[in-house]
Amino acid sequence: MKHLVLLAAVTLAFAARADEGMWTLDNFPSAKVRQKYGFAPDAQWLRETQLSSVRLAGGCSGSFVSPDGLVMTNHHCAHSCIEQLSTQEKDFVAQGFSAAAPENEVRCPEIELNQLVQISDVTPRVQGATQGLKPGKEYNAKRKAAMASLEKECSAGDEKLRCDVVELYHGGQYSLYRYKRFQDVRLVFAPEVAIAFFGGDPDNFNFPRYDLDVYFIRAYEDGKPARTDHYFKFSPNGAKEGQLTFVSGHPGGTDRELTMAQLQYQRDVALPERIFDLAQYRGALTMFTETSPEHYRIGENQLRSVENSYKALRGRFEALVTPSLWNQKQQRERALRAKVNARSSLKQKYGSAWDDVAKAIAEFQPRHKEYQYVEQAAGLNSPLYRIARDLVRGTEELQKPNEQRLKEYTDARLPQLKQRLFSKAPLYPEFEVFRLSYALTKLREELGADHPLVKKVLGKKSPQELAQELAKTKLYEVKEREQLWQAGREAVQASSDPMIQLARLVEPEARALRTWHDDEIETLEISGAERVAAAKFELEGKSNYPDATFTLRLSYGAVKGYEEKGRHVAPFTTMAGAFDRATGRDPFKLPDSWLRANENHRIQLETPFNLCTTNDIIGGNSGSPVFDQDRQIVGLIFDGNIQSLGGEYGFDETVNRAVAVHSSALIEALDHVYGARRLVNELKSAPGTATGAGAR
Amino acid sequence: MKHLVLLAAVTLAFAARADEGMWTLDNFPSAKVRQKYGFAPDAQWLRETQLSSVRLAGGCSGSFVSPDGLVMTNHHCAHSCIEQLSTQEKDFVAQGFSAAAPENEVRCPEIELNQLVQISDVTPRVQGATQGLKPGKEYNAKRKAAMASLEKECSAGDEKLRCDVVELYHGGQYSLYRYKRFQDVRLVFAPEVAIAFFGGDPDNFNFPRYDLDVYFIRAYEDGKPARTDHYFKFSPNGAKEGQLTFVSGHPGGTDRELTMAQLQYQRDVALPERIFDLAQYRGALTMFTETSPEHYRIGENQLRSVENSYKALRGRFEALVTPSLWNQKQQRERALRAKVNARSSLKQKYGSAWDDVAKAIAEFQPRHKEYQYVEQAAGLNSPLYRIARDLVRGTEELQKPNEQRLKEYTDARLPQLKQRLFSKAPLYPEFEVFRLSYALTKLREELGADHPLVKKVLGKKSPQELAQELAKTKLYEVKEREQLWQAGREAVQASSDPMIQLARLVEPEARALRTWHDDEIETLEISGAERVAAAKFELEGKSNYPDATFTLRLSYGAVKGYEEKGRHVAPFTTMAGAFDRATGRDPFKLPDSWLRANENHRIQLETPFNLCTTNDIIGGNSGSPVFDQDRQIVGLIFDGNIQSLGGEYGFDETVNRAVAVHSSALIEALDHVYGARRLVNELKSAPGTATGAGAR
Repeated sequence: MKHLVLLAAVTLAFAARADEGMWTLDNFPSAKVRQKYGFAPDAQWLRETQLSSVRLAGGCSGSFVSPDGLVMTNHHCAHSCIEQLSTQEKDFVAQGFSAAAPENEVRCPEIELNQLVQISDVTPRVQGATQGLKPGKEYNAKRKAAMASLEKECSAGDEKLRCDVVELYHGGQYSLYRYKRFQDVRLVFAPEVAIAFFGGDPDNFNFPRYDLDVYFIRAYEDGKPARTDHYFKFSPNGAKEGQLTFVSGHPGGTDRELTMAQLQYQRDVALPERIFDLAQYRGALTMFTETSPEHYRIGENQLRSVENSYKALRGRFEALVTPSLWNQKQQRERALRAKVNARSSLKQKYGSAWDDVAKAIAEFQPRHKEYQYVEQAAGLNSPLYRIARDLVRGTEELQKPNEQRLKEYTDARLPQLKQRLFSKAPLYPEFEVFRLSYALTKLREELGADHPLVKKVLGKKSPQELAQELAKTKLYEVKEREQLWQAGREAVQASSDPMIQLARLVEPEARALRTWHDDEIETLEISGAERVAAAKFELEGKSNYPDATFTLRLSYGAVKGYEEKGRHVAPFTTMAGAFDRATGRDPFKLPDSWLRANENHRIQLETPFNLCTTNDIIGGNSGSPVFDQDRQIVGLIFDGNIQSLGGEYGFDETVNRAVAVHSSALIEALDHVYGARRLVNELKSAPGTATGAGAR
Repeated sequence: MKHLVLLAAVTLAFAARADEGMWTLDNFPSAKVRQKYGFAPDAQWLRETQLSSVRLAGGCSGSFVSPDGLVMTNHHCAHSCIEQLSTQEKDFVAQGFSAAAPENEVRCPEIELNQLVQISDVTPRVQGATQGLKPGKEYNAKRKAAMASLEKECSAGDEKLRCDVVELYHGGQYSLYRYKRFQDVRLVFAPEVAIAFFGGDPDNFNFPRYDLDVYFIRAYEDGKPARTDHYFKFSPNGAKEGQLTFVSGHPGGTDRELTMAQLQYQRDVALPERIFDLAQYRGALTMFTETSPEHYRIGENQLRSVENSYKALRGRFEALVTPSLWNQKQQRERALRAKVNARSSLKQKYGSAWDDVAKAIAEFQPRHKEYQYVEQAAGLNSPLYRIARDLVRGTEELQKPNEQRLKEYTDARLPQLKQRLFSKAPLYPEFEVFRLSYALTKLREELGADHPLVKKVLGKKSPQELAQELAKTKLYEVKEREQLWQAGREAVQASSDPMIQLARLVEPEARALRTWHDDEIETLEISGAERVAAAKFELEGKSNYPDATFTLRLSYGAVKGYEEKGRHVAPFTTMAGAFDRATGRDPFKLPDSWLRANENHRIQLETPFNLCTTNDIIGGNSGSPVFDQDRQIVGLIFDGNIQSLGGEYGFDETVNRAVAVHSSALIEALDHVYGARRLVNELKSAPGTATGAGAR
């Protein structure tokens, strides 16, 4: 028993660690914050924070910063918008964009904003649906139906509402999140990518930094700027060292509560394989973008995204192979299971939960590549293929009642599906041929030249040859997609479009894999995970935050430096630092606007530029506001340091740092580099904002 | 104690497994072979085998197959030779090569052959040199000096001899291997790469196969074909199912006897990082070769090599994350250490050995990237850089007495160094710019933009810019290299060649890392490993074979199929199968010579083409002869199946298979596809060879 007591102490120390946590807004530890920082958010404060925060449905965070629908997020979050609006003649990525007047604001093809308006606990209905059922087909059908009904009831056919049943604590809790949905979103301001992403891949996930990674967009309703009563105001002074900071946003996912079997699968299979593929694709894509300026223009956004994922996943992998982290997690699980097994009532309910999860993984593993390359279409990674597949599968699914459809085709999900399907974002044949050739080659490599599906897809053709044929699809045209969608199942089944034909060809195998996965694997894993979570609740209470799931979270912390390789890293950089670091060569090349502004002494060089804080964030938090206890914006999250990548599995306050643009630098640059008067005025004049914005 | 007894039984079962082992020729288990197969090689048989086998110093195996210096190896082993002899006008890689007359045989720029003539045990002298010393500077100096002296004494300045002190059993035994060296090696015959590597990367490491991966070269002495009294004759019938087969050759390396700390470093750090880099480089290089036919010609050999390494290392990684293998190894080490600790005499001598190895690794890890990217030049991966570095470092080292030099610049190593340094193999500026840009970008990425050496190397330049400057080096010219080498240290130090300047710039940091590694890390690891080996000898005797170290080994086995995914894989394919598998698209496109021969019914389609055997081999065995108990060639090793990749860490006879070209297919193709009469006659008429070669 001595052993176990010791372990329990370790676990408690971990749970009590300060500043850790991505908290849901209905379970925020205000008392804990008061204890450390002397300030406790109350219900009204939390409510305002919730309504002032927004989610970019594509995978980022943002905040309302004026009563007229103005939203601040990161350049890298909405980069696709300027890329999609650019042409060979006018490249807004390189040159930036600033709408001098309201009528110059341009609609982004694929951005959807979600404002969380209501949270309800629906655990009993979701868990109740599968009560007494063994994992399997019926279990899956009942669970899926319960969730689809909840979502449909909640939005009641109103496309301006979005309702998601959200899985928290790995199924320990289910919440219904109702969002207000904005699909008409327009571009207001973007700086040049050279300063938004100064330092490029080498500096990504590093601190000190010198990036103006900001982007302003505006939510519209009925063709007019949306009226937004809840928004953040800018702080007149910005962040100061040691100050209490909050970050609200939508961390995409963490894996801190996985079982050891799940973690081992990540360490040994999922992460390495994903990184192997990303690395190779990165090498190929880099060369593609170097072939010509036009190839660079059409491929660079994806390259950045691939480089970002590559670095992030390598960081995670490195965290998982760190023996201290691994051993700590192993000890924690052993201690928990020992406690469960020590009481027969607990043992009966939860004893086998971890084994069920492990069994699900063991059964998944032998076919994981087929699932990934065929059903998840990693082997056919092209937007055109995904469009074809949505047409084939979507028109088929729409024949069924809402409750029986695959999740992504339920009524509640149709607005987002349609936005993607009918997006006017341009697709370039030469890029698609490149991507399809690559993907088909990997499909053959990973499944083997003799795999029946590979033979069926390729026949005697080479991947390059088939890619060329597929790229002749008419699905480049939005009209073609709309017509097929409206004409429905029969028309899609009869289509002779090569990409649709391919999607039809793959569909039987893909469906079979999906059914197997959803019925056999997922139900076993979730039924185990739900019981693991229940065991934790019963033994530890709900004192902990759930793993991130791209739902709204609030974290608290402070502006604070850290120690690295024996030296102190200060929490601020200055705008002068960017000029020191510049080499004149990409990615350390400052844009002309900055060089000119500096020559003319228009920039206050001592203005703080970037900062770091102890807030616990992760990918998906990009674009989150950093604000003080008065809910005034003092910064804009855009990254974490390299040590934060291990945050996927645990939070180490000594070195894990969130990285943000300082609010003073935002105002300084908008005002004195870009002369974006209309925007500065809107930010400064927002009712309630102190007038003297900027630090000086 | 019950636990430990059980574990020991597991270990013994493993050691006794049939057909396992890459045996040194002075410790071959003839009795074991007799027990299973009814035949035991005697001393004379082993001696003949030894002298008939050759090593390609660049990393492959081969065999003498006539008394006139004719050597058979794989196409992929000597591919670089035809590539180096090709020009934009005449591409021998695509078209193949056949010397119709002796005077058409052309010299290969970089091939060195080694024939092992003598093995002596020098363990007492090497281990004695460090007796009583603690790991560190003096330990390293004494050990290095002992090895350098042994090698120098052995070759006595005769450049036709090559002497290597060989580390076996991870330092448990040191042997001095004396080879006869052939540096004048000429190309006799090579088929088209399309049939040598039919199926390309998708089929690589797979079985069934249909490859004619053969290459004939000839050893010359004093400008004439070398007289080789010891050689293998061709079998008149070739391999039959179930037949006893031997394979002699030079497996490059295995890691079956590593400690758990070493294995964990491989699993968690070394292997994944290497695969990440290979994957990315593979992606980039593939695109490079697709830019133009000329880029394909100059880059495809490296691409194949990268793809091969990528697949091989992934196979190793997958083996290491297999829990059964890992647990078995863990149990074996635990049992061994328990036995050592149970006897105080053993504990005193060996108890800390495993911890020393682990400590060496733990100390190495934080600086492993610097060591790899700076000293091992992974960040400067270009033959031009390696030439510059050999000039800078070599001329410096030559100032010192032989015993004090870095190993690679000792007198015994100079002939091979010079062959590489003064190789006439062409280097192409556009390919070097590509490689240097890639490498410099990775250097910055892996060490960080703020690393002092990165700053020193790049300054304000971009990797691409620096690569362009470096590619202006004069080191493309062999004369320039020869002049600098002969002029010596002063001249090299004074050179203004940009590549030499770079090598000089990096040298202080590289040297410091090397000294740290050799003195602090390597000595600690080897002193631990030597004691681990000694403990095994003391407890288990020398009943086991040492891990492979690119020294001559002999393995035994049988022609045998296996079970895979529930079906039986037969041990043979036929030449007809190649035509069935062909799609007309690379890499499944047969060369015209084969299509024509088939149209004219010149090929006996039922001729066995490839086969698999249970022989225990690994990378480096490529080009090894497969022969019967009469030492007659029945096949030519060129690959292993996918399951053989785990052979790095252990041998599983149920599925691990060596893959070879059948001897009948060799004769059939030479005779009826290529009409290579001179070569067929030489093979058939070799004294003692049965005249009716070929299976029918």
